[in-house]
Amino acid sequence: MSTLREEALKIHKKYQGKLGVHSKIPVQDANDLSLAYSPGVAEPCLDIHEDESKVYDYTMKGNLVAVISDGTAVLGLGNIGPKAAMPVMEGKALLFKSFAGVDAFPICLDTTDPDKIVEVVKLLEPTFGGVNLEDIAAPQCFEIEDRLRKVCDIPIFHDDQHGTAIVTAAGLINALKLADKKIEDIRVVTNGAGAAGVAIVKLLLHIGVNDVILCDTKGILYEGRPFGMNPFKEEMARITNKGQRQGTLADALEGADVFIGVSAAGAVTKEMIRTMNHHPIIFAMANPVPEIMPEDAKEAGVLVIGTGRSDFPNQVNNVLAFPGIFRGALDVYAREINEEMKMAAVYAIAGLISDKELNVDYVIPDPFDRRVAAHVAAAVASAAMETGVSQKHVNVEEIKKNLLLVEEKQPIFL
Amino acid sequence: MSTLREEALKIHKKYQGKLGVHSKIPVQDANDLSLAYSPGVAEPCLDIHEDESKVYDYTMKGNLVAVISDGTAVLGLGNIGPKAAMPVMEGKALLFKSFAGVDAFPICLDTTDPDKIVEVVKLLEPTFGGVNLEDIAAPQCFEIEDRLRKVCDIPIFHDDQHGTAIVTAAGLINALKLADKKIEDIRVVTNGAGAAGVAIVKLLLHIGVNDVILCDTKGILYEGRPFGMNPFKEEMARITNKGQRQGTLADALEGADVFIGVSAAGAVTKEMIRTMNHHPIIFAMANPVPEIMPEDAKEAGVLVIGTGRSDFPNQVNNVLAFPGIFRGALDVYAREINEEMKMAAVYAIAGLISDKELNVDYVIPDPFDRRVAAHVAAAVASAAMETGVSQKHVNVEEIKKNLLLVEEKQPIFL
Repeated sequence: MSTLREEALKIHKKYQGKLGVHSKIPVQDANDLSLAYSPGVAEPCLDIHEDESKVYDYTMKGNLVAVISDGTAVLGLGNIGPKAAMPVMEGKALLFKSFAGVDAFPICLDTTDPDKIVEVVKLLEPTFGGVNLEDIAAPQCFEIEDRLRKVCDIPIFHDDQHGTAIVTAAGLINALKLADKKIEDIRVVTNGAGAAGVAIVKLLLHIGVNDVILCDTKGILYEGRPFGMNPFKEEMARITNKGQRQGTLADALEGADVFIGVSAAGAVTKEMIRTMNHHPIIFAMANPVPEIMPEDAKEAGVLVIGTGRSDFPNQVNNVLAFPGIFRGALDVYAREINEEMKMAAVYAIAGLISDKELNVDYVIPDPFDRRVAAHVAAAVASAAMETGVSQKHVNVEEIKKNLLLVEEKQPIFL
Repeated sequence: MSTLREEALKIHKKYQGKLGVHSKIPVQDANDLSLAYSPGVAEPCLDIHEDESKVYDYTMKGNLVAVISDGTAVLGLGNIGPKAAMPVMEGKALLFKSFAGVDAFPICLDTTDPDKIVEVVKLLEPTFGGVNLEDIAAPQCFEIEDRLRKVCDIPIFHDDQHGTAIVTAAGLINALKLADKKIEDIRVVTNGAGAAGVAIVKLLLHIGVNDVILCDTKGILYEGRPFGMNPFKEEMARITNKGQRQGTLADALEGADVFIGVSAAGAVTKEMIRTMNHHPIIFAMANPVPEIMPEDAKEAGVLVIGTGRSDFPNQVNNVLAFPGIFRGALDVYAREINEEMKMAAVYAIAGLISDKELNVDYVIPDPFDRRVAAHVAAAVASAAMETGVSQKHVNVEEIKKNLLLVEEKQPIFL
């Protein structure tokens, strides 16, 4: 039997990558050519020249997302460079298409300089309806996203930050129902101050968590910590850790309600969990080996555990978020993806599990639950219209219906 | 009945542009996902990280061309900007796919600064197997292409220059057979010193024309002309006009064998043609109205006339060149498109018309002649291998066969 490695290489080589570009209209004769190309093509050009917003109607921009990486933090492989990052970016683009009908195109940049990355993305803006930043190392990823959000008039979304944060927050909301705890009362400890960790903390504060402690490899982050800081960690220390605790991850976990790990295999022990508040909730997302294995966590008294893996319950998989988020943003020609849109995605994902279905092994929907993208898209489009960042009004029930309809005939996206 | 304008706008709006991105492999379940994405995707990443040349085998790069414009010289519309240029670049990409199975992706840049264009294309290099520059105004287009060819390790090809030049040269070779003139004996007058005019002159000198005169709106270019010069025109004046003629286009045409117009409607009169050598050959490519209409040209004694229009015989259409040229270049993972490859394309296009078929209304193959791309691709791949710019050896008869085979089932490219 062939191994995963052999199978994966084979499928990548068979078609020379995973993505293709296709024409949506036929070009079989001179008449077709006269409409799609010269001279007919001059008409949409002239209309867009007169009213730039029409570029969304007449070109692929309105359904097109760039998946952009510099190859500095690819999967768990680290800084492997832009060419080696291509298979991942193609895979990401493929998920956009498969899960939400979004045309996504991979772009791997031959630079790791934040100034150049910001410049090139800004120069590419006319072509795309949105930008998904991917696998760019922290802390540069924060600066790059912040600067691009300021200069661009299309959504800029670093999925490693916000995708993970949104799905984790959705799982947490559901898990708290089972634990019978209120979000404003809990203390959350997040381990890992990279892209995902920082975004998780910020989102938790937005959705009502009052007490969050962020740890990195050197322990608890606090204002004025004299070691291992950078401007982004300083900011995180200011907005977290109300009690100004100091110490190790183990110190942080004493009495805590929730542990969220985006760190490393084995970072949490049974002993540490036994010091937590009753009904502990754990999201242990280190890949491929989580901070603590689900069976160990359960033995130590954990109520709910989620991981990044598909072979355990409650998989925190970004594919639950980004396809629907961009679908919703594109459908209303959104100029950005703001906090309200991200929160709308959180509640849409959480809300797909009814109180009746909810249980410790089902606080997060299945990645292949075809309802997810439709519900997320509708919620995100609504939030965009309500917060004034949309450029087009749509009926969100139509979005939902169309997406569910198309998804029944899934291969149309392939 | 609806007008061309209405039809063209309708077809552009119907599908929100003309291009889509699709997955070449299915993603229906967790197993598919584990091969195309995490964890399986790590395998091609690691292989490419170890040997960068494998990026051609495992990613779409090996079949992918960027169609890049700054929107400064779009069709006959001029400087309409990057957003308004998008429909044309999508159309171009669609032709790449329809005629030669090449995945092409439109990128319109939000800058007209040659330094920035060079920088951004260089930064995009890891993703693409080639770059087709499109609708960039002269003289900036010359500098941009020259600089990119130096810094990039993938083919850089400004189609407005070379595509037009290659098809024109092919038509000229065939027309000379009918005129019974040798290429080394003729005098050619080219009117228009923009992208196409300059490239035509350079290519004609390469294929053996000894006497070329280039005119612009101010008349004949000659060394030291005290008006309307720039560095590119100075260079052209140095390499053309052996007799150091001065004067108007009419002066240039006296006794000339060939007129090639990439200029403006009505630039040539019957009277001017009557001063040319016997059996004059005309390529009047101003669009939509040629330098002289075919019936007027024939009345004035022209032997062969080609134009840019599909409603007259001998259409000089770039689609005869660029799809096959990039197909051939990609098939051998070429690092550039050199002069030998361009000349191979010229002879491949010319050679498709047998001596028996050749006549004054058929010196250039029909744009929809499906043999063209296959023959051009095979010839270009051969030339790339012979000149040492290929990174892969292929059997060119296989290229030809595969392309002809696929083209019989044309919709596979759509």
